[in-house]
Amino acid sequence: MDRIPILRMGEFLLVTIQVDMHDRLAVALQDDLTERISQTGAHGVLIDISSLEVVDSFIGRMLANIAAMSRILDASTVVVGMQPAVAITLVELGLSLEGVKTALNVEKGMELLRTSLNGHPGGLGHGPAKR
Amino acid sequence: MDRIPILRMGEFLLVTIQVDMHDRLAVALQDDLTERISQTGAHGVLIDISSLEVVDSFIGRMLANIAAMSRILDASTVVVGMQPAVAITLVELGLSLEGVKTALNVEKGMELLRTSLNGHPGGLGHGPAKR
Repeated sequence: MDRIPILRMGEFLLVTIQVDMHDRLAVALQDDLTERISQTGAHGVLIDISSLEVVDSFIGRMLANIAAMSRILDASTVVVGMQPAVAITLVELGLSLEGVKTALNVEKGMELLRTSLNGHPGGLGHGPAKR
Repeated sequence: MDRIPILRMGEFLLVTIQVDMHDRLAVALQDDLTERISQTGAHGVLIDISSLEVVDSFIGRMLANIAAMSRILDASTVVVGMQPAVAITLVELGLSLEGVKTALNVEKGMELLRTSLNGHPGGLGHGPAKR
Protein backbone atom coordinates (compact mmCIF):
# COMPACT_ATOMS: atom_id res chain seq x y z
CA MET A 1 0.00 0.00 0.00
CA ASP A 2 1.78 3.14 -1.13
CA ARG A 3 -1.22 5.35 -1.83
CA ILE A 4 -4.26 6.42 0.14
CA PRO A 5 -7.27 6.53 -2.20
CA ILE A 6 -9.03 9.85 -2.74
CA LEU A 7 -12.72 9.47 -3.59
CA ARG A 8 -14.67 12.13 -5.40
CA MET A 9 -18.16 12.68 -4.03
CA GLY A 10 -19.84 15.42 -6.02
CA GLU A 11 -17.92 18.59 -5.38
CA PHE A 12 -16.05 17.18 -2.41
CA LEU A 13 -13.12 14.82 -2.02
CA LEU A 14 -13.10 12.13 0.64
CA VAL A 15 -9.98 10.59 2.14
CA THR A 16 -10.22 7.77 4.68
CA ILE A 17 -7.04 7.25 6.65
CA GLN A 18 -6.87 3.68 7.89
CA VAL A 19 -3.19 2.88 8.02
CA ASP A 20 -0.32 4.16 10.08
CA MET A 21 1.10 7.17 8.31
CA HIS A 22 4.78 7.42 7.59
CA ASP A 23 6.74 10.21 5.91
CA ARG A 24 6.50 9.00 2.34
CA LEU A 25 2.82 8.11 2.57
CA ALA A 26 2.03 11.55 4.00
CA VAL A 27 3.96 13.28 1.22
CA ALA A 28 2.26 11.11 -1.41
CA LEU A 29 -1.15 11.97 0.07
CA GLN A 30 -0.39 15.70 0.01
CA ASP A 31 0.81 15.47 -3.60
CA ASP A 32 -2.18 13.41 -4.74
CA LEU A 33 -4.68 15.55 -2.91
CA THR A 34 -3.44 18.90 -4.19
CA GLU A 35 -3.35 17.46 -7.71
CA ARG A 36 -6.89 16.13 -7.40
CA ILE A 37 -8.16 19.46 -6.04
CA SER A 38 -6.73 21.35 -8.98
CA GLN A 39 -7.93 18.67 -11.43
CA THR A 40 -11.50 18.52 -10.16
CA GLY A 41 -11.95 22.04 -8.86
CA ALA A 42 -13.26 20.56 -5.61
CA HIS A 43 -14.21 23.07 -2.91
CA GLY A 44 -14.09 20.73 0.03
CA VAL A 45 -11.95 17.94 1.42
CA LEU A 46 -13.21 15.49 4.04
CA ILE A 47 -10.61 13.49 5.94
CA ASP A 48 -12.02 10.59 7.92
CA ILE A 49 -9.81 9.47 10.80
CA SER A 50 -12.37 7.29 12.61
CA SER A 51 -10.12 4.25 12.49
CA LEU A 52 -7.11 6.03 13.95
CA GLU A 53 -6.64 5.28 17.63
CA VAL A 54 -3.57 7.47 17.93
CA VAL A 55 -3.00 10.89 16.40
CA ASP A 56 0.49 12.08 17.20
CA SER A 57 2.17 15.36 16.39
CA PHE A 58 3.25 14.01 12.97
CA ILE A 59 -0.31 13.30 11.87
CA GLY A 60 -1.53 16.50 13.49
CA ARG A 61 1.00 18.49 11.48
CA MET A 62 0.08 16.59 8.30
CA LEU A 63 -3.61 17.44 8.80
CA ALA A 64 -2.75 21.08 9.37
CA ASN A 65 -0.53 21.08 6.26
CA ILE A 66 -3.27 19.55 4.12
CA ALA A 67 -5.77 22.11 5.41
CA ALA A 68 -3.36 24.96 4.62
CA MET A 69 -2.56 23.66 1.12
CA SER A 70 -6.23 23.10 0.35
CA ARG A 71 -7.12 26.58 1.55
CA ILE A 72 -4.67 28.08 -0.93
CA LEU A 73 -6.35 26.01 -3.65
CA ASP A 74 -9.75 27.38 -2.52
CA ALA A 75 -10.94 24.21 -0.79
CA SER A 76 -11.97 23.84 2.86
CA THR A 77 -10.82 20.86 4.87
CA VAL A 78 -12.91 19.12 7.51
CA VAL A 79 -11.50 16.32 9.65
CA VAL A 80 -14.29 13.93 10.62
CA GLY A 81 -14.83 10.92 12.87
CA MET A 82 -12.21 11.67 15.49
CA GLN A 83 -12.46 9.29 18.43
CA PRO A 84 -13.04 10.95 21.82
CA ALA A 85 -9.82 9.48 23.22
CA VAL A 86 -7.89 11.03 20.32
CA ALA A 87 -9.32 14.47 21.09
CA ILE A 88 -8.28 14.10 24.74
CA THR A 89 -4.74 13.07 23.79
CA LEU A 90 -4.40 15.91 21.28
CA VAL A 91 -5.27 18.52 23.87
CA GLU A 92 -3.02 16.89 26.46
CA LEU A 93 -0.19 17.00 23.92
CA GLY A 94 -0.88 20.68 23.39
CA LEU A 95 -1.92 20.14 19.75
CA SER A 96 -5.00 22.19 18.95
CA LEU A 97 -5.17 21.43 15.19
CA GLU A 98 -5.01 25.12 14.37
CA GLY A 99 -6.94 25.99 11.22
CA VAL A 100 -8.48 22.53 10.88
CA LYS A 101 -12.26 22.29 11.03
CA THR A 102 -13.77 19.15 12.53
CA ALA A 103 -17.13 17.40 12.44
CA LEU A 104 -18.55 14.33 14.17
CA ASN A 105 -19.02 12.24 11.02
CA VAL A 106 -18.93 12.44 7.22
CA GLU A 107 -22.54 13.58 6.92
CA LYS A 108 -22.08 16.44 9.39
CA GLY A 109 -18.81 17.32 7.68
CA MET A 110 -20.56 17.56 4.33
CA GLU A 111 -23.24 19.79 5.85
CA LEU A 112 -20.53 22.02 7.29
CA LEU A 113 -18.81 22.25 3.89
CA ARG A 114 -22.09 23.02 2.13
CA THR A 115 -22.93 25.74 4.63
CA SER A 116 -19.50 27.34 4.41
CA LEU A 117 -19.62 27.07 0.63
CA ASN A 118 -22.95 28.86 0.44
CA GLY A 119 -21.60 31.65 2.59
CA HIS A 120 -18.41 31.77 0.53
CA PRO A 121 -18.37 34.79 -1.83
CA GLY A 122 -16.72 32.80 -4.63
CA GLY A 123 -18.84 29.70 -4.12
CA LEU A 124 -21.85 30.79 -6.14
CA GLY A 125 -19.99 30.94 -9.42
CA HIS A 126 -19.55 27.19 -9.34
CA GLY A 127 -23.23 26.32 -9.18
CA PRO A 128 -25.36 25.60 -6.16
CA ALA A 129 -23.75 23.62 -3.38
CA LYS A 130 -26.52 21.06 -3.26
CA ARG A 131 -26.55 18.26 -5.78
CA MET B 1 -6.05 -1.86 12.68
CA ASP B 2 -8.73 -4.39 13.49
CA ARG B 3 -11.71 -2.63 11.95
CA ILE B 4 -12.47 -1.21 8.54
CA PRO B 5 -14.48 2.00 8.96
CA ILE B 6 -17.99 2.17 7.51
CA LEU B 7 -19.05 5.68 6.58
CA ARG B 8 -22.66 6.70 6.29
CA MET B 9 -23.39 8.96 3.31
CA GLY B 10 -27.09 9.77 3.30
CA GLU B 11 -28.91 6.54 2.69
CA PHE B 12 -25.82 4.66 1.56
CA LEU B 13 -22.90 3.15 3.40
CA LEU B 14 -19.36 3.48 2.09
CA VAL B 15 -16.52 1.09 2.82
CA THR B 16 -13.01 1.76 1.54
CA ILE B 17 -10.80 -1.30 1.60
CA GLN B 18 -7.16 -0.24 1.82
CA VAL B 19 -5.46 -3.01 3.73
CA ASP B 20 -4.78 -6.64 2.99
CA MET B 21 -7.77 -8.63 4.14
CA HIS B 22 -7.34 -11.59 6.43
CA ASP B 23 -9.97 -13.92 7.86
CA ARG B 24 -10.73 -12.08 11.05
CA LEU B 25 -10.84 -8.66 9.38
CA ALA B 26 -13.25 -9.99 6.74
CA VAL B 27 -15.53 -11.51 9.38
CA ALA B 28 -15.41 -8.28 11.41
CA LEU B 29 -16.32 -6.28 8.31
CA GLN B 30 -19.28 -8.54 7.53
CA ASP B 31 -20.51 -8.31 11.13
CA ASP B 32 -20.11 -4.54 11.30
CA LEU B 33 -21.69 -3.97 7.91
CA THR B 34 -24.79 -6.10 8.50
CA GLU B 35 -25.24 -4.43 11.88
CA ARG B 36 -24.91 -0.95 10.36
CA ILE B 37 -27.38 -1.82 7.59
CA SER B 38 -30.01 -2.93 10.09
CA GLN B 39 -29.24 0.05 12.37
CA THR B 40 -29.44 2.69 9.68
CA GLY B 41 -31.89 1.09 7.26
CA ALA B 42 -29.44 1.82 4.46
CA HIS B 43 -30.50 0.68 1.01
CA GLY B 44 -27.11 0.66 -0.64
CA VAL B 45 -23.55 -0.30 0.13
CA LEU B 46 -20.56 1.02 -1.83
CA ILE B 47 -17.30 -0.87 -1.51
CA ASP B 48 -14.29 0.98 -2.88
CA ILE B 49 -11.39 -1.28 -3.83
CA SER B 50 -9.38 1.26 -5.82
CA SER B 51 -6.30 0.77 -3.68
CA LEU B 52 -6.28 -3.01 -4.02
CA GLU B 53 -3.77 -4.22 -6.55
CA VAL B 54 -4.63 -7.86 -6.04
CA VAL B 55 -8.07 -9.39 -5.62
CA ASP B 56 -7.76 -13.11 -4.97
CA SER B 57 -10.46 -15.70 -4.54
CA PHE B 58 -10.68 -14.92 -0.81
CA ILE B 59 -11.55 -11.27 -1.38
CA GLY B 60 -13.77 -12.20 -4.31
CA ARG B 61 -15.74 -14.56 -2.09
CA MET B 62 -15.93 -11.96 0.67
CA LEU B 63 -17.36 -9.39 -1.76
CA ALA B 64 -19.92 -11.92 -2.99
CA ASN B 65 -20.83 -12.79 0.63
CA ILE B 66 -21.29 -9.15 1.56
CA ALA B 67 -23.49 -8.62 -1.50
CA ALA B 68 -25.62 -11.66 -0.61
CA MET B 69 -26.00 -10.63 3.04
CA SER B 70 -26.85 -7.06 2.11
CA ARG B 71 -29.43 -8.25 -0.40
CA ILE B 72 -31.25 -10.18 2.32
CA LEU B 73 -31.25 -6.99 4.40
CA ASP B 74 -32.75 -5.10 1.41
CA ALA B 75 -29.58 -3.24 0.44
CA SER B 76 -27.80 -3.38 -2.92
CA THR B 77 -24.04 -3.64 -3.08
CA VAL B 78 -21.87 -1.95 -5.68
CA VAL B 79 -18.13 -2.55 -5.88
CA VAL B 80 -16.38 0.55 -7.22
CA GLY B 81 -12.95 1.62 -8.38
CA MET B 82 -11.62 -1.73 -9.52
CA GLN B 83 -8.28 -1.36 -11.28
CA PRO B 84 -8.17 -2.69 -14.86
CA ALA B 85 -5.42 -5.18 -14.00
CA VAL B 86 -7.59 -6.58 -11.22
CA ALA B 87 -10.48 -7.15 -13.62
CA ILE B 88 -8.13 -9.01 -15.99
CA THR B 89 -6.81 -11.20 -13.18
CA LEU B 90 -10.29 -11.98 -11.88
CA VAL B 91 -11.46 -13.23 -15.26
CA GLU B 92 -8.25 -15.19 -15.76
CA LEU B 93 -8.80 -16.80 -12.37
CA GLY B 94 -12.34 -17.72 -13.43
CA LEU B 95 -13.91 -15.45 -10.79
CA SER B 96 -16.81 -13.53 -12.26
CA LEU B 97 -18.05 -11.89 -9.02
CA GLU B 98 -21.50 -13.39 -9.46
CA GLY B 99 -24.24 -11.18 -8.03
CA VAL B 100 -21.94 -8.24 -7.44
CA LYS B 101 -22.66 -5.00 -9.27
CA THR B 102 -19.72 -2.82 -10.21
CA ALA B 103 -19.18 0.80 -11.19
CA LEU B 104 -16.16 2.81 -12.28
CA ASN B 105 -16.04 5.13 -9.27
CA VAL B 106 -18.00 6.16 -6.18
CA GLU B 107 -20.05 8.78 -8.02
CA LYS B 108 -21.14 6.34 -10.74
CA GLY B 109 -21.83 3.73 -8.05
CA MET B 110 -24.11 6.16 -6.23
CA GLU B 111 -25.94 6.93 -9.46
CA LEU B 112 -26.41 3.21 -10.06
CA LEU B 113 -27.78 2.74 -6.54
CA ARG B 114 -30.15 5.69 -6.88
CA THR B 115 -31.44 4.39 -10.21
CA SER B 116 -31.97 0.86 -8.91
CA LEU B 117 -33.60 2.26 -5.77
CA ASN B 118 -36.09 4.29 -7.80
CA GLY B 119 -37.02 1.24 -9.81
CA HIS B 120 -37.25 -0.88 -6.68
CA PRO B 121 -40.85 -1.66 -5.73
CA GLY B 122 -40.14 -1.38 -2.01
CA GLY B 123 -37.92 1.65 -2.40
CA LEU B 124 -40.66 4.25 -2.56
CA GLY B 125 -41.87 3.65 0.97
CA HIS B 126 -38.59 4.95 2.32
CA GLY B 127 -38.76 8.36 0.69
CA PRO B 128 -37.27 9.54 -2.58
CA ALA B 129 -33.82 8.31 -3.43
CA LYS B 130 -32.42 11.81 -3.90
CA ARG B 131 -31.44 13.82 -0.87
